[in-house]
Parts: sequence; structure tokens; C-alpha cells
Amino acid sequence: MSGPQTPEPALDDQGDSPTDTREEDTAAATQHSHRMLNFSDALLSIIATVMILPVTHTEISPEQQFDRSVQRLLATRIAVYLMTFLIVTVAWAAHTRLFQVVGKIDDTLALLNLACMMTITFLPFTFSLMVTFPEVPLGIFLFCVCVIAIGAVQALIVVYAFSFPHLLNPRIGRSAHCGLYRRHVLQIILRGPALCFLAAGFSLFFYPLSYLLMATVIFLPHVSKAAGWCRDRLMGPREPPAHSMEFFTFDLQEPLSKERVEAFSDGVYAIVATLLILDICEDSVPDAKDVEERFHGSLVAALSAYGPQFLAYFGSFATVGLLWFAHHSLFLHVRKATQSMGLLNTLSLAFVGGLPLAYQQTSAFARQPHEELERVRVSCAITFLASIFQFAVWTAALLREAETLQPSVRFGGQEHAFMFAKLALYPCASLLAFLLTCLLSRFSTAIFHVMQIAVPFAFLLLRLLVRLALALLRALQGLAQPAHCAEDPLLPASC
Amino acid sequence: MSGPQTPEPALDDQGDSPTDTREEDTAAATQHSHRMLNFSDALLSIIATVMILPVTHTEISPEQQFDRSVQRLLATRIAVYLMTFLIVTVAWAAHTRLFQVVGKIDDTLALLNLACMMTITFLPFTFSLMVTFPEVPLGIFLFCVCVIAIGAVQALIVVYAFSFPHLLNPRIGRSAHCGLYRRHVLQIILRGPALCFLAAGFSLFFYPLSYLLMATVIFLPHVSKAAGWCRDRLMGPREPPAHSMEFFTFDLQEPLSKERVEAFSDGVYAIVATLLILDICEDSVPDAKDVEERFHGSLVAALSAYGPQFLAYFGSFATVGLLWFAHHSLFLHVRKATQSMGLLNTLSLAFVGGLPLAYQQTSAFARQPHEELERVRVSCAITFLASIFQFAVWTAALLREAETLQPSVRFGGQEHAFMFAKLALYPCASLLAFLLTCLLSRFSTAIFHVMQIAVPFAFLLLRLLVRLALALLRALQGLAQPAHCAEDPLLPASC
Repeated sequence: MSGPQTPEPALDDQGDSPTDTREEDTAAATQHSHRMLNFSDALLSIIATVMILPVTHTEISPEQQFDRSVQRLLATRIAVYLMTFLIVTVAWAAHTRLFQVVGKIDDTLALLNLACMMTITFLPFTFSLMVTFPEVPLGIFLFCVCVIAIGAVQALIVVYAFSFPHLLNPRIGRSAHCGLYRRHVLQIILRGPALCFLAAGFSLFFYPLSYLLMATVIFLPHVSKAAGWCRDRLMGPREPPAHSMEFFTFDLQEPLSKERVEAFSDGVYAIVATLLILDICEDSVPDAKDVEERFHGSLVAALSAYGPQFLAYFGSFATVGLLWFAHHSLFLHVRKATQSMGLLNTLSLAFVGGLPLAYQQTSAFARQPHEELERVRVSCAITFLASIFQFAVWTAALLREAETLQPSVRFGGQEHAFMFAKLALYPCASLLAFLLTCLLSRFSTAIFHVMQIAVPFAFLLLRLLVRLALALLRALQGLAQPAHCAEDPLLPASC
Repeated sequence: MSGPQTPEPALDDQGDSPTDTREEDTAAATQHSHRMLNFSDALLSIIATVMILPVTHTEISPEQQFDRSVQRLLATRIAVYLMTFLIVTVAWAAHTRLFQVVGKIDDTLALLNLACMMTITFLPFTFSLMVTFPEVPLGIFLFCVCVIAIGAVQALIVVYAFSFPHLLNPRIGRSAHCGLYRRHVLQIILRGPALCFLAAGFSLFFYPLSYLLMATVIFLPHVSKAAGWCRDRLMGPREPPAHSMEFFTFDLQEPLSKERVEAFSDGVYAIVATLLILDICEDSVPDAKDVEERFHGSLVAALSAYGPQFLAYFGSFATVGLLWFAHHSLFLHVRKATQSMGLLNTLSLAFVGGLPLAYQQTSAFARQPHEELERVRVSCAITFLASIFQFAVWTAALLREAETLQPSVRFGGQEHAFMFAKLALYPCASLLAFLLTCLLSRFSTAIFHVMQIAVPFAFLLLRLLVRLALALLRALQGLAQPAHCAEDPLLPASC
């Protein structure tokens, strides 16, 4: 918010007191990492999501049978999409944790970060290779090379940052055990690349083992958490480690920075919302010759042939937009994101990324009423999965509410019922639509459109509806115990 | 908000002092607009840039002649891209200014904003129609309908926000002339839609006038600024308006929020950097059958055929990444962005968005050495234009440096020379490469690759190089007048 600030003297350079130049020198070269992290988040979220495009762009001509080869092609591409989404999310989480240790950046770190990003953006390609040629070890080999390169760059970042302690998170930079921290951080960072080095070796003579090692790398944070949990169960809770590690923020169990979870999610929602308008602009502009010949020069008639696509666009945008809205409302009241919330959020985002598929690809099969039904059901299912995982984030947060949520949305809080309604709306609506299409399969399209139109209005009126429902409940309660109401501080003034 | 009927709050709610319920009610429903604006910025920057994809995806088979019809198709798509970029940027600037007036949001505003976004994302499609069918007024008509719809939603936002003054920018919300502000803001917002209403009317019987009106809408901010400047020149500087308008932030001449300029630019850079990896994943994975037949099962041989594309990807990513780096460094030292800086930044971004075109589309013609030369030159030219406009932002900032820049990068500041070198590096390198290809046209590819490899290293070593150059200069200066150096407070300490 830059308003017209208090007018300054034209040349106020002279006013700057010439303090210690050495310090000023480092201060000028040091920068807040905020914008670089935003850029990285945008880049990674786009990379994660954009692999849905090859799936939606799979060309299937009307006369072509939906036979095994097409099915295999589609399955391959969906597998690549899901794996890419997962691996990029893991890389993003590692990046987030790394820059929780490194608090500030300078030019060198910014350039190293760019190198790291470039290597990460190459990962989807190695997946494409792996899935297309599962028996040729080249894909695995390239993947391992990428992971090793990322690890090397990240290790460089750590070594560089630890040699200029003013770049570190102040808590670590000022600690007396800086060297200890460095060794520990390096160990964690180089664990994945070391496994990949093994995997690259095995890929040359026994590749199935490489796949296993690769999966270990991807799921390392969750594997290590599960291992820790099992150990705790078997041997009783561990003693906390030596005092020096007390404040250690680069732990894999550490919650992710809430800001960055939001930024990454925003990126995914934004790119998903815009993917379909791209297709509309590319494919739904009728050909000039076509308009002349088939529609006797009437552009309106030609455009009306594309009607369903426009409807699909608006429907898709509304769904993505409102899911973003629910996510935004939820995270507004979240204090910090635990690891399980992060995982559930990732799963929700993966299905949000699948929405364009539901709306577009399946419409290619919508030649017969039977397939129209399929299309509606797939859309409902994907919407349901995306929204139910969002709801699960909320449930996971409620389980540790004192730590993760703000008071107003906790059990009994002012906004609790409203938030619940907001997050439950899409799962309920899509489940209802799905069930209705099973009962009344002839009207499936109508049911789907009614749902698409009704849900945004429901969101607008939600606050009113929740108030009405609560007022009703209170009225019933009031009839039962009329004296209680005036004493309860949580009930609103209108009571 | 109404709380659920649970009589006692669960945990530490007790700590919250039960203040005025009315106030708490508004506080709970009011939210900071920060994340919504970030999301809008991401959405708008992707929409603006993504229209380059239809250009890069224009299929030209090797045997097809690069004849008039292909040229026309390409020109059409480039026109759509540029117009889309411009109109989305204008819409983004209006959105920025609107939310400089509206400081906080609630659920209703968030939903209205989503509706506004949805309408804006539809604008590129109306452009596609207009360019493909320049003589059919339907495109203009749809464009006008969109602009009117956007205006209506924005007017709703303003009316809603002004009826709950706690949502407004505190300076306006607390002002005694709130009603006056509202009228003024509404006037500015509805100016464009009113013109479009006229244009829609004219489109039915005399469409060329509609185009003129439409252009006026797009360039309204710049037209009104130019008009104001001319008037000032002719009639002497105007008296400032009545005291009530003194703090008015919704003026069209007002600088844009620097944060949002950064967020929008980040979005553009991020999507541009990732567009090419998408193409690589979609097109550069060899076909399994092909590998078997043409390359005797050797995947490595098959991949090496795609070598130039991988090289193009890394080159493109490095260029976009380093241009982002220069932009990031510049805006780190910018205090506020004036309107001319915003315009120059937009132009720079438009050419950044064109980089995938340079790297990919032209490679389709790269069958003969002659066209290879073309390709290199187009790449150099686009890189040059993107970076020279970035340099122009810096120049424009220097012209009003007391207001726009931080002390350390002003004339004579510590970082001035370094910033200059950073921003001048790409224009110089691309210009040099372009000139060299004219002289040594046979080695054009080699020259280009040398440039691509040399520039990132130059960035890494820039601080060193600049220091060396300054030390040299100082040594020369010291020889001339040895007494001066110690007194000059602007020269670094190593002097």
C-alpha cells in the first residue's frame, strides 16, 4: 500500500549517517528472501500442475475406438502427472525447510537458487521417460542425476550460508553450536542424493532395486516420521536430544511455513483456473472458412456449437475459485501447518489439478448419452476428492487445535460452525450430485448444472443460512432452558 | 458471529477478553486482503502470458511452405498475444488501484473478486474472435459486454465496501468526505464501461468507431495522463483540488503498489520459465515404436536427436531466470513504482513473455543454415528488447530518484555502479551477439551459445568485476588528485 508518503527533502542522501562501512556493505548486499521464495513457489506450483496438460491434450478422434492403446496412453500420462505432482511437492517441502534455516539471501544465493529451480523443473521429463520406457534404465539414471545435482546445489547453499552467519536464521546464526548445525543440515540434505547415487549404480545392472530406492527418496520424510512413531510406540517416548538441538528448525518433523503453503496452493489454484481458458482461446475460435460454408456466415450460430465448452469453462472456474475460497478461509484461521496437514493439503491440490481433466478430456467421449453420464460422474468424483481432502485438513487441524488454529474457529468458537459449513459444502454437494445421477441417470447433465449454479449462491448465502440454523437451534435450546441464554458470553448480542 | 450452543469454550478461549460483541463480529468476518491479492496477481499474470502458447504451438509441417496463410496465422496470434497482454495489464492496474481504496476484505468481497477474475479471464477469447473475424462486430460486442460486467462487479465492490467503512483504507474510511470519495471512485470505475456501452451500440451499425472507443478504454489512464500534461503545459500547472481530495489514493496518476508490481512480474517470469519444459515433456519423449525401428532400441541415440531442444530449454530458462534476477535486484531498491515505471515494466514483461516464441517457434524453421541465423537473431532481438525496457525502468527511476529509489543505488550511492552493471549486462550481451552474427554469420549458433554460457558466469562474477573496475577508476583518479579520495564519503571503504 504505497500512498503518497510524507514529502521528503529532495536530496536526503546526506542525511544517512556514515556508519561502519563494512557493515553497510554487507547490509546492502543482503536481501530479504521473501520475493525469491514467492517466485520459487510460483515456479514449483506451475511445474507441479502443468503436467496435467499432456493428459487433457490427448487427441482422440471421434471414430477412434477407446481401445487398449488409448487407455494405456492416458494411464501413462495420468501416472506421470501424479508422480510429478508428488515429487515436485517433496522438492518444494525440502526447499521450504532449507530456507527456514537460511533466513536472508544475497546475490550468490539467489543465483544458486535459480540453478536449483532449473534442475527441479527437469524432473517431470525424467518421469515421462521412466513411464514410457519402464524397462530402460536411462530414465532412472537421469532422475538420479537430477536429484544428485539438486543435492549438490543445496549443499552449496548451506555451506555458503553457514560461512556468512548473518544470512542464517538469527536463532541458528547466533548459536554457539553453529558447526554442529551445519553438519546436521548437510547430513539431512545429502541423504537423498546418497540414496540416488546407489540407485544410479543399481540402474545399470538391476533396475527394480533402483525403483525401490527412488521411492524411498520421495517418501523419506514420511518414512522417517513413521519409523520414529513406531520406535516411540515400541520403546517408549525418546529422550529429547542434547540441549544444543533444542531450537533446531531443520527437522523433518518441523511444521512448514504457513506462508509458503499458502503461496504454493495459490499457484496451483491459479494455474488450474487458467488452463481451460487457454484451450478455449486455442480451440473454440471457429475457422473463418468453416463459418462461411457450414453456418452461412453466421458467427453466432458457429459459436453456439461451442456452447458446452463455454459452460464447462465457467463451471470449472467457479469450482476452482470456490475451492480456493474455502482454502483461503481455512488458512486465514490456521496458525501453523503441521506435517499431516501439509500432506492432506498436497493430496487435495493434486485432485484440484485434475479438475481440467474432468471437465475437458472426458468431454471428448461425450458423444453418447451413456458417456455423458460417465463424464458427470468423473467430474463429481474429482470435485468430491479435492474437497474432502480439504475438509480433512480442517479435521487434522482440529485434532491439535490449541496449536494449529485460532481461537475463533476452535470447538465452541464463534466461527466454528460457519467454517464447518464452508468446508462441508462442496463434499456434500458433489456427493449428492453423484448419488442423484445414480438414481436419475437420465437427468444427469441437468443435475450437474443445477449443482454448479446452486453452490456459488449457497456460498454467498452461507453466513445467513448458518445463522438461521443456529438461531433455530438456539430457539429450541431456549425453550428447554430459558435462563441460561443471558449468561453465556459466546452467544451474540442478538440473543 | 453466532457461536454454537456449547456452553463452555474448550481451552484457552477464556483468555480473550469479552469486548464489545459488535466489534468482535466485524473483526472475525474481516480479513487481510494480502492473500487474495496474491492469488489475483498470479491469475492475471498467467492469463496475460499464456496466450503466447497458441503462437508457439502453431504447427508448421516441414514440407509446408512458409507462405502467406501461415504468416497471416502467426501474425494474428502474435497480435492476440500482445493485445491480451496489454488489456490484462490494464485490468490488473485498475484492480490494484481499486484495492488500494479497499484495504480489507470479507467473504462477500472475496466472492465478488472471484466473479471479477472470471470475467477478466474471458477477455482473451473476445480478442481471438476480433482478430480472426475483424469485420464481424460480435467480437467487439462480447468485449464490451465483458468490460461492462467487470465494471458492474467493481462498482458493486465499491458500494459494498463504502457501506462498511471498516473495510476501507483507514485514511479514506475515517475521512469526513466519505460520500464524496465514493462518488469520485464510482465515476472513475464506470468511465470505461460507459464508453464500452457506446461502443457496443456503434458495433451494430458502424463498427470502426467501436474500435476507436475500445482503444480509448484500454489507454484511458495514459490518455488522461497525457491530457493532463498537455493542459499543464498550455495553461500552467493546475491548482491542487479542494482540500478534501488531498489524500485521494484512487487517482489514475497514483503510483502502483510496489508489492503488486512485484507479484505480477513474478507470475509472468514463473509461467514463462515453465512453458518450455511443458513442451519438452509433451514432445521430446520419443515414441517407443520409433526407438525400436529407427534407433535399434537405443534410447540414448533417440534422445540425442532432441539435443537442440534441451539446449534451447536450458538457454531459455537461464535467460528468463537471470532477467528475473535483475528485476528482483532492481525492485529491491525501489521505494515506489511511478506510472511510467509501471508502463516500461509492462513492456519489458510483454517481451519476456515472447521469449518462448524466440526459442521454440522459430526452431521449426531451423532446417537450413539460413534460417538458423534468423532464429538466433530473433532470439537476440527479443532478449535485447526485454532487457532494454528493464534498463529503461531503472533510468525512469533515476530521473526521480529521491522519490523512487533507496539511497544506496542513487547517483553516487554505494550500489549504483553495481546495479548499473547488472541491468546493462543483458542488453549489451544480446546486442553484441546480434552484431557479431551480422559480421560472422557462419558462426551465429556458436556465438549465441557462447553468449548463453558466458552471461550467467558474468552475473556470478559481476560484483568482483565491478569492484575491479571501480578500483581501477579510483587508482586513476587517485593518481590525478590524491587528496580528494579520503574526503569523498560516497566511495567504498576499501578506497
